[in-house]
Amino acid sequence: MLKYRAHLSEMPSYDVTERDWQVKVNANECNLQMPPLVEERVMSRMSYVAFNRYPNTETDSLCEQIAAAFSLPRENVSLGNGSSEIIEKLFYCFGGRAHKIVYPQPSFSMYAIYAKAAEAVGVPVPLEEDYSLDVEKFVAAVEENKASLAVVCNPNNPTGNLLSLADIEYIAQNITCAFLVDEAYIEFGGESAAKLLSQYPNMIVARTFSKAYGLAAVRMGYMLADAGLTAMVQKASMPYHINVLSLVTADIVYQMRQEYQPRIQMMIAERKRMYEQLKKIGVLTVYPSQTNFLLVHYDGAAVLNDRLEAQGIGVRSFGNAPRLENCLRISMGTREENDLWLKSIQDFAEERQ
Amino acid sequence: MLKYRAHLSEMPSYDVTERDWQVKVNANECNLQMPPLVEERVMSRMSYVAFNRYPNTETDSLCEQIAAAFSLPRENVSLGNGSSEIIEKLFYCFGGRAHKIVYPQPSFSMYAIYAKAAEAVGVPVPLEEDYSLDVEKFVAAVEENKASLAVVCNPNNPTGNLLSLADIEYIAQNITCAFLVDEAYIEFGGESAAKLLSQYPNMIVARTFSKAYGLAAVRMGYMLADAGLTAMVQKASMPYHINVLSLVTADIVYQMRQEYQPRIQMMIAERKRMYEQLKKIGVLTVYPSQTNFLLVHYDGAAVLNDRLEAQGIGVRSFGNAPRLENCLRISMGTREENDLWLKSIQDFAEERQ
Repeated sequence: MLKYRAHLSEMPSYDVTERDWQVKVNANECNLQMPPLVEERVMSRMSYVAFNRYPNTETDSLCEQIAAAFSLPRENVSLGNGSSEIIEKLFYCFGGRAHKIVYPQPSFSMYAIYAKAAEAVGVPVPLEEDYSLDVEKFVAAVEENKASLAVVCNPNNPTGNLLSLADIEYIAQNITCAFLVDEAYIEFGGESAAKLLSQYPNMIVARTFSKAYGLAAVRMGYMLADAGLTAMVQKASMPYHINVLSLVTADIVYQMRQEYQPRIQMMIAERKRMYEQLKKIGVLTVYPSQTNFLLVHYDGAAVLNDRLEAQGIGVRSFGNAPRLENCLRISMGTREENDLWLKSIQDFAEERQ
Repeated sequence: MLKYRAHLSEMPSYDVTERDWQVKVNANECNLQMPPLVEERVMSRMSYVAFNRYPNTETDSLCEQIAAAFSLPRENVSLGNGSSEIIEKLFYCFGGRAHKIVYPQPSFSMYAIYAKAAEAVGVPVPLEEDYSLDVEKFVAAVEENKASLAVVCNPNNPTGNLLSLADIEYIAQNITCAFLVDEAYIEFGGESAAKLLSQYPNMIVARTFSKAYGLAAVRMGYMLADAGLTAMVQKASMPYHINVLSLVTADIVYQMRQEYQPRIQMMIAERKRMYEQLKKIGVLTVYPSQTNFLLVHYDGAAVLNDRLEAQGIGVRSFGNAPRLENCLRISMGTREENDLWLKSIQDFAEERQ
């Protein structure tokens, strides 16, 4: 018998195999390819990568660029293989036996798993009936549990709603542990908490290139935090953990981020349009969203999901996840794609009237 | 005060900033760019990557190709961001309180660090005077310590020497815990232990694209092991931890691996040539190597290193690392680069006669 780490066998296995959907709106990806101007520059940069050398100046170059954009010192910026790796490493750094990590529920499903992997105690704080977060209740849970790390996802995945910057600041003011604000979807709605970092050195902002910048394939995220905290988290990261191809791609995309403004505005407009359309379908509940997706509740969600699947439309169904029973999450695709899935849902609802 | 994981602050910080060396032979990289034929295909493949989608079939495609090359089922292959990530995750999976991980010393310096990160007890087994591993002593240490994981690096970094397949099998036969054979340099000399996997389900082989295949920038390694063990280690890996750009690059390089045979032979020839040349320098000791580097001992290694540095030549100095005092490790560069560093060492030695 092999002597595995205690509790490893209880960890879930991930099955990330995908069907070849006709309309893929199940992973909050950006359904547009790179803007041609950006792609041209990425490909040209790629052609002079020194494939044979370990990553070196490329990490600094991207970190410096991000630091400058936020008017922060270089020492406040670090990178991860997607913001996923940043979250994983933060959970590790503030985890360990008897350490507690507090996060809302429902929220990003990996929080519970990363807490377990870090051998920390995950403490989910239930969202209210309308999925809003009661920040006083959240602060109380953090303090009562003497948590080592508190996490909010803002705007929240998969519920779509946003905490105001005042609410974020209220939490920061009233807790003493490390405080991660996961801003994977912030470009679609809210105001980044990055501006609060200088006042609250316990605060950490995680961002990603996967959503608004359409680089899910590239796995690139970044973390903004106090230099001391950043240095501690870096101790838990392997040297050379980020490859050069992803670094140079993200570097160019970030340089050209103005090119992404029109498409971000388009996705926001689509979200608003789809929200209004879905609201008209009486049997559904659609929740307000400040992200690139909408959460929909329907009593027969499994049947609806089957119908969509049969039509080659992939949305995210949450099965029996707590507080997400009968919920489907639909990412905003192109206008044409959105029209397709909307039509399917409308037809389905009509048949049932 | 932030509540970090216990002992995190004792972990070292990595400084991987590099000088702009004229001759860079300090990191066991391949000093040749991609073969033009391979580069052309990589670039053309890159141009139809769906940057906006999470990795999907690309992981399977590379794993299936590797599995076929080793006549193993797909389930026996998994990937990491460099073999570094594979080692890190294995140490995690077999780590945890009171678990012991046994490895030779001197060997790859990260073993001790990954053991600490995994909150395991690292148990280094000293190599003999000539840097050979006494496999009976190693087996005894594994059994006495009731280790959860035993590791050998074969050929060994930084000493360059090789364990025979019979020695590897002797270890596999006589221990019951998981047994990792880290084969980062196997293409330059030895015979892979992969063929033993079917007989010893506790055995794991880690390989990398960074050395013989010159893809250090890309961060790609793979692990060959029993399906059950592979599935357990996968539980510790984030979904989508490997980016598509690295996946497609490694996929094409592996398809075209025959293109790399001439350069691997060239590096072996250079290693033999340099070994003979260095042996002629009386004040040095040079150790036999089955890798793409040579380990050299010289009583005034620091002074020699300073001289090389002043001439823009970067070699690896081990400072006060145990059993590596006054040792320098020199990677095999191109013939021209090797002539340059050799000349510097020869001149230095002559001045001192």
